[in-house]
Amino acid sequence: MSDLSKMSKTVVFHEAGAPEVLKVEQVEVAFPGAQEVRIQVKSIGINRADAMYRQGMYIENPIFPAQLGYEAAGIVEAVGSEVTNIAVGDLVNVVPGFSLHNYASYGEYINMPAYAIHKYPSNLSFDEAASVWTSYLTMFGMVVHSGQLKSGQFVVVNAASSSAGLAAIQMTNYVGGIAIALTTSQKKKEALLKAGAAHVIVTSEQDIATEVLKITENVGAHIILDPVVGAKFSNLLSAVAENGKVFVYGALSHEPASFPAFDVLMKTPTIRGYSAIEVMGNMEVLIQAITFIDKGLAEGKLKPVIDKVFNIDDIVASHNYLESNQQFGKIVVNI
Amino acid sequence: MSDLSKMSKTVVFHEAGAPEVLKVEQVEVAFPGAQEVRIQVKSIGINRADAMYRQGMYIENPIFPAQLGYEAAGIVEAVGSEVTNIAVGDLVNVVPGFSLHNYASYGEYINMPAYAIHKYPSNLSFDEAASVWTSYLTMFGMVVHSGQLKSGQFVVVNAASSSAGLAAIQMTNYVGGIAIALTTSQKKKEALLKAGAAHVIVTSEQDIATEVLKITENVGAHIILDPVVGAKFSNLLSAVAENGKVFVYGALSHEPASFPAFDVLMKTPTIRGYSAIEVMGNMEVLIQAITFIDKGLAEGKLKPVIDKVFNIDDIVASHNYLESNQQFGKIVVNI
Repeated sequence: MSDLSKMSKTVVFHEAGAPEVLKVEQVEVAFPGAQEVRIQVKSIGINRADAMYRQGMYIENPIFPAQLGYEAAGIVEAVGSEVTNIAVGDLVNVVPGFSLHNYASYGEYINMPAYAIHKYPSNLSFDEAASVWTSYLTMFGMVVHSGQLKSGQFVVVNAASSSAGLAAIQMTNYVGGIAIALTTSQKKKEALLKAGAAHVIVTSEQDIATEVLKITENVGAHIILDPVVGAKFSNLLSAVAENGKVFVYGALSHEPASFPAFDVLMKTPTIRGYSAIEVMGNMEVLIQAITFIDKGLAEGKLKPVIDKVFNIDDIVASHNYLESNQQFGKIVVNI
Repeated sequence: MSDLSKMSKTVVFHEAGAPEVLKVEQVEVAFPGAQEVRIQVKSIGINRADAMYRQGMYIENPIFPAQLGYEAAGIVEAVGSEVTNIAVGDLVNVVPGFSLHNYASYGEYINMPAYAIHKYPSNLSFDEAASVWTSYLTMFGMVVHSGQLKSGQFVVVNAASSSAGLAAIQMTNYVGGIAIALTTSQKKKEALLKAGAAHVIVTSEQDIATEVLKITENVGAHIILDPVVGAKFSNLLSAVAENGKVFVYGALSHEPASFPAFDVLMKTPTIRGYSAIEVMGNMEVLIQAITFIDKGLAEGKLKPVIDKVFNIDDIVASHNYLESNQQFGKIVVNI
């Protein structure tokens, strides 16, 4: 071990599978390369993409031994020779936009490319700072950049209790829109109203399209954000406004979905498969997004909702909890 | 009857229903209003929208006694007092963009608003001139205006033997794209190749996605034009290229359609309900479309394909034939 490297408690997995494949191991982390930064991590943000990657069901496949994770917040502990805008001691978080084959956030010390390092607004805790980028960049892409939401317009947020869903509610309010949250559970209704939803539809008890048309006085939803698809997809699509926009950004349900051709013809919506790569892969849009989100965070209008904090030694439990779908907001892991 | 009005053999219906509700009656047609033009019709273009309106299943409902029809070509026979750019004797066709409650094309003499009257390129016959606008405006909207097709890109044309499908093939070729035609019938394959399709997939015998990926060397279709939806919709969607565009402009199939969530997430296409109102309702786009289409018609690159010509006395037979789905191209009715 070189004088300049660090031993790090790091999550590693040697085969794809259930949460139990995740192991905490001691890993040597080299001194950062010329354009890299090494962070002493305080908090890690857990994302559904992490669980998909762990299972070998993501857009890239793990190469073993594999590490994982897109989000973290901590203190800069060393900087590469060519890094000029970041200094040791800075409080930073990680903006995803790298391959998990090259970088990963689940560790005590992690190297990251300098372009992925961001000095976040000082009103955020480490846990909050580790919970910003995947959710808010995804929602910026759909609500603001592609969706062009206007003040007074209606946004239907499916799976509203997820960190992405809560970010969508906040962003809708920030732009002046009206958020209609969908949840399967009556128990989460109060919490969603407190979290900023103007209306909540409990989909196990209420018909989505009927309720949305009632709330919007038959206008329908200008934007629908759906990470679920599945059996209620057709009902959800029938809630769209004329020329509305439907974003499919996940497929949490494994049930087949049907396509309501007649409604699509009558209301001529745009239905899009959506990936946050549309924001992260376009420097101009990414800078616009970061500026917008930082402003909202600093004003307290955007504020990550933390559900539960695990210790890195309980990484398996954190992924089991993620997959139980009980959460209300973000799951984070402290070190 | 005033000296200036004309008796006209006109198609009228007094109840919604099967083709047999259509009757040929003598109707008095007034001298055109200040901003109207009266045409002596030579040929009428028959559209699927006409059949839907006849059945009371269109975006507007008939008010009885009702007339119908969006397309016609003929000779200007009288002009209103404020009409300056059109003269008696001009050869014209009708550009749809009016309510069937106000105007209709199925008659020997018809009044039309001057804005819907167009002097067509002189190389067209009356039958061809009556077969231009619904098909080519619809396809301009999807292929050129919204689809932004680029040279070398692939377009999958479902229901390719319809007049709209054949217009799509021609327009794809005119822009430099590569048309892949879908047909249910092996019998139409040769005719589609002759009509300009670079490839033909016979969907009763071949898997759409497999064949499209083979033809495009795994790129997929940049644009998919679908007026069918139904049981093969999911298979059709799986043929889309990354960030491709899928236009649903009809729902000829009454079978349920499923939505392939996984493919939509992986390839992030845009799926749109489409209506030609997007072109017809925007004067700037409409002028752009008419200029583009007239140029293609004058050059012979766009050329309506006429399938079968009926006489107005056989109007019932023309609609029965339309609904039999045997046609290859446009059905027209002469007077």
